Amino acid sequence: MSHEYEFPRAALTVDCVVFGLDDEDLKVLLIERDLPPFEGRWALPGGFVRLDETLDDAARRELCEETGLERVYLEQLYTFGDLDRDPRERVVTVAYYALVRLSDHRVQAATDARQAAWFAIDDLPRLAFDHERILAMAHERLRGKVRYQPIGFELLPPKFALRQLQHLYEVILDRPLDKRNFRKKILAMDILVELDEVETDVAHRAARLYRFDKTKYRRLTKQGFNFEI
Amino acid sequence: MSHEYEFPRAALTVDCVVFGLDDEDLKVLLIERDLPPFEGRWALPGGFVRLDETLDDAARRELCEETGLERVYLEQLYTFGDLDRDPRERVVTVAYYALVRLSDHRVQAATDARQAAWFAIDDLPRLAFDHERILAMAHERLRGKVRYQPIGFELLPPKFALRQLQHLYEVILDRPLDKRNFRKKILAMDILVELDEVETDVAHRAARLYRFDKTKYRRLTKQGFNFEI
Repeated sequence: MSHEYEFPRAALTVDCVVFGLDDEDLKVLLIERDLPPFEGRWALPGGFVRLDETLDDAARRELCEETGLERVYLEQLYTFGDLDRDPRERVVTVAYYALVRLSDHRVQAATDARQAAWFAIDDLPRLAFDHERILAMAHERLRGKVRYQPIGFELLPPKFALRQLQHLYEVILDRPLDKRNFRKKILAMDILVELDEVETDVAHRAARLYRFDKTKYRRLTKQGFNFEI
Repeated sequence: MSHEYEFPRAALTVDCVVFGLDDEDLKVLLIERDLPPFEGRWALPGGFVRLDETLDDAARRELCEETGLERVYLEQLYTFGDLDRDPRERVVTVAYYALVRLSDHRVQAATDARQAAWFAIDDLPRLAFDHERILAMAHERLRGKVRYQPIGFELLPPKFALRQLQHLYEVILDRPLDKRNFRKKILAMDILVELDEVETDVAHRAARLYRFDKTKYRRLTKQGFNFEI
């Protein structure tokens, strides 16, 4: 190691904003801190990056250790480096975010987390550090993302009604969408395959089922589009 | 400082991908390294983050120190943390990118840079570290960005012909665009104000001049759109 690089260093952490969808709400996964600073305060799951792990690995490890969540596709969001964001010392954090189906994931608090729980996005406790700012940016990114990339592939069952897909968008965007307009636009994206099946076991009139065309879905994810809804 | 945070730490750097536009080319600003590792190799301007400066400030400082460039709007791109990206030790780098008008900026190498120069994006030397990967991601982001946000405000003179704006897009996207189609789409964005003036001192037929509507331009920058060209 060259001598000129021996100077005081910031600590490096990762933080994870995991959004969870259920039938009604957009939720976010938080942990209650078991250590100072902000002991007892709710925060995003996260922690220090080890010298021998990549940033992505650190995010996955911390998320799993503190909340039990595994096999979540975390995407890098932004790196936050304000001077005073941690009362202990200079800490720079690389934030990640993800969107999962709530029913797929059972949370289990451990390590530095006293408990882990899902909170509705519009009913959050006060958060530790600058985590409110990180969460706000992640939320904005998520809303922006659904305008440029298809969603639903990992959030819906393999066969679904258009109503279910529309509901996903409504929950994320937090506003009702016009049914006819939504159907027209989503079908124009050419990522859905209409099946020769209808819903079963439903109280209302059974709706036509669809599935995603995986190849077209992936292509659209890559190239982007504009879904002005 | 709590004891549990005393562990070996990665070094933290910033790197800047500054794209420059002139009349013909998209260029990128590189420096020739004056220190090992990769002494004599071209690289992105950048360096170590100090404990008492934000990441944004570090990026601005390093860019200015090594290349003389000031007053550049740097946007955070991505943080790179592969284990072996620096042969000395673990170094995590927060990458930034910017797009400037080449004629506005005179480069002047200093500090750790032997020289600084603009290179055409399609004729680059071999780069140090993982800087080719960083540059590739910045280039992809730039091309993506022009589809969702207006460009040109800081890259064109206050009054300009549509041909000049089209040329900007052609240089960034590296392909010719259909004139009629481009005009139709750019005017539909409703960010241009047609002036009661035409070009002067031009060899070809004097074209109508336009300026940006600053308020609408900013609104569109914020809300995004889809400019499929």
